[in-house]
Amino acid sequence: MFACTGYATESADQPLGPYGFERRDVGPTDVRIEIAYCGVCHSDLHTARNEWKNTVYPCLPGHEIVGKISEVGPEVTKFKVGQVAGVGCMVESCRECASCKEGLEQYCENGFVGTYNGVEKQTGRNTFGGYSKAIVVDQDFVLRIPENLELAAVAPLLCAGITTYSPLRHWKVGPGMKVGIVGLGGLGHMGVKLAHAMGAHVVLFTTSPGKVEDGKRLGADEVVISKNPDEMAAHAGSFDFILDAVAAAHDINEYLNLLKRDATLCQVGAPEDPLAVAVFSLIFKRRNFAGSLIGGIAETQEMLDFCGEHGITSDIEIIEMAEIENAYARMLKSDVKYRFVIDMATLEAA
Amino acid sequence: MFACTGYATESADQPLGPYGFERRDVGPTDVRIEIAYCGVCHSDLHTARNEWKNTVYPCLPGHEIVGKISEVGPEVTKFKVGQVAGVGCMVESCRECASCKEGLEQYCENGFVGTYNGVEKQTGRNTFGGYSKAIVVDQDFVLRIPENLELAAVAPLLCAGITTYSPLRHWKVGPGMKVGIVGLGGLGHMGVKLAHAMGAHVVLFTTSPGKVEDGKRLGADEVVISKNPDEMAAHAGSFDFILDAVAAAHDINEYLNLLKRDATLCQVGAPEDPLAVAVFSLIFKRRNFAGSLIGGIAETQEMLDFCGEHGITSDIEIIEMAEIENAYARMLKSDVKYRFVIDMATLEAA
Repeated sequence: MFACTGYATESADQPLGPYGFERRDVGPTDVRIEIAYCGVCHSDLHTARNEWKNTVYPCLPGHEIVGKISEVGPEVTKFKVGQVAGVGCMVESCRECASCKEGLEQYCENGFVGTYNGVEKQTGRNTFGGYSKAIVVDQDFVLRIPENLELAAVAPLLCAGITTYSPLRHWKVGPGMKVGIVGLGGLGHMGVKLAHAMGAHVVLFTTSPGKVEDGKRLGADEVVISKNPDEMAAHAGSFDFILDAVAAAHDINEYLNLLKRDATLCQVGAPEDPLAVAVFSLIFKRRNFAGSLIGGIAETQEMLDFCGEHGITSDIEIIEMAEIENAYARMLKSDVKYRFVIDMATLEAA
Repeated sequence: MFACTGYATESADQPLGPYGFERRDVGPTDVRIEIAYCGVCHSDLHTARNEWKNTVYPCLPGHEIVGKISEVGPEVTKFKVGQVAGVGCMVESCRECASCKEGLEQYCENGFVGTYNGVEKQTGRNTFGGYSKAIVVDQDFVLRIPENLELAAVAPLLCAGITTYSPLRHWKVGPGMKVGIVGLGGLGHMGVKLAHAMGAHVVLFTTSPGKVEDGKRLGADEVVISKNPDEMAAHAGSFDFILDAVAAAHDINEYLNLLKRDATLCQVGAPEDPLAVAVFSLIFKRRNFAGSLIGGIAETQEMLDFCGEHGITSDIEIIEMAEIENAYARMLKSDVKYRFVIDMATLEAA
């Protein structure tokens, strides 16, 4: 074990603050990363405040992690000391179920080990995430980072990037397809960039007229103000695929009705309450309403390589560690373009 | 035009009763069928009582029609006088859109012409359905009936049969698959018979312990009482496909959670109010919630031929025309095993 520092909370109603703890030593197949940046995901806030009712305290969030490798175990073959590397939402899975064997560790039938608020396979303890100085992860759950990308802006790719990339690939988005992205936030802005890079005709749906220009800058061919019924109606039955990245309550039928026959709307935002689905929206064109969860490790690597080739990163705002509670407050107001990233060099001063 | 008789209603709050009207004469490509039997579908009741708010009166329901051909137009090549034939939910479509060209007339982008409560293409008048002595339909929307099946029990195949057959085929149900059928009514009992004949392992879900034996007789390998949480939990994450034939409000998440990763639950029952879908039910295993509407004409013929090969018909209770309101009342209490069929020879006396 080695002493580490981070930012954590002891209960749902306390703010995050400096926290000292121990990490496991580097095992035979482990990699130790000195964390340079960590993205701030809405899940961090949900978990810190126990909004999903499953938080184990102390809670130390963060699963959009990039940094430099400082140590590798004797059996590590994939990485070397000094390399830049990343860690996303998972740090282990059972590796034996059908999903794991297909490279779909995110759907591990025995439950993957979350980067935080999970049960560490090697020690049985609660996992602590990326709001910290360093992390130790088995090499099979560590990602290579393309060297041409700005490191801080890569961090959100590890969650927001793969969460949108995986369904876009699964439903075979590409040239000749009309693809909708609902909501321009952390996930949505990655969806727009990625779907555009995949060659689709991209239509962004937003409630904010102020986001039209930004949507186009990010790669949308069209931007629809979803509050305007006429604009919505003009797109009825015309989409090959829609990715819905809205985590707030909204009328999903308005979007289902925009799908072509046999097309799919995939939800990646996770509203707290159930969504009311009018069955006729599905029946009349044999439409599909689906969901998707992050992506497997191999696909996450594929996504990072794709982003390297296409020069894609997240639009970010860098914050200091001590600003995290303020960042959460702004995130709740959607006041960020489009992802906060913590400069982990500021942890010492926090 | 020729004089015809049937059973119709002039408004939502009046019972059906004898009704005299005119049908178009047989045109060059038309077939005239003397109706022997007509099945009673829940849609008949919804439409007669304007529960979908789109009924044009007078309303003469019925879209599970079988009978004998009495006249054919000079250009008819598919049928001859004296043959037995059937008509289902559609009597025309635009024939030009992408869906029609693919043989998916039920998803006609210009709207198919319903067998009743539609706009007759040839005359511009409201269509009248199968609660009548005779009907005139273009040969392309007329079906051949396998000679080995009991004619009265074939009638419900034209709606309840194809509504369940089409999604079972679309989602490729066959040997080695575990398939759930939710609800044992007009649709559900056909779903059980068809999925069993396709070679799947069939699990019927019902709220009625009294239906267990009947479910097994119809072809279910297992029957689950859906009110029993332990029985439901035992099937978590294990289904390749679920067909939900329940038209009443119910908790769809209980069934979504029984699907394997990437599997689909298809709704063919049409509850009036939206269903509340917990997004996590979909996200955690990339599940799909879909809908499906009847089937195309070619697929309806394929279904009838399949039923002929496998000796499949509907379980029916034959009624007289004058008993229709009583049949509706019993249908609302699910007091029928499993479909009412009107003996149209009783129309004269009604």
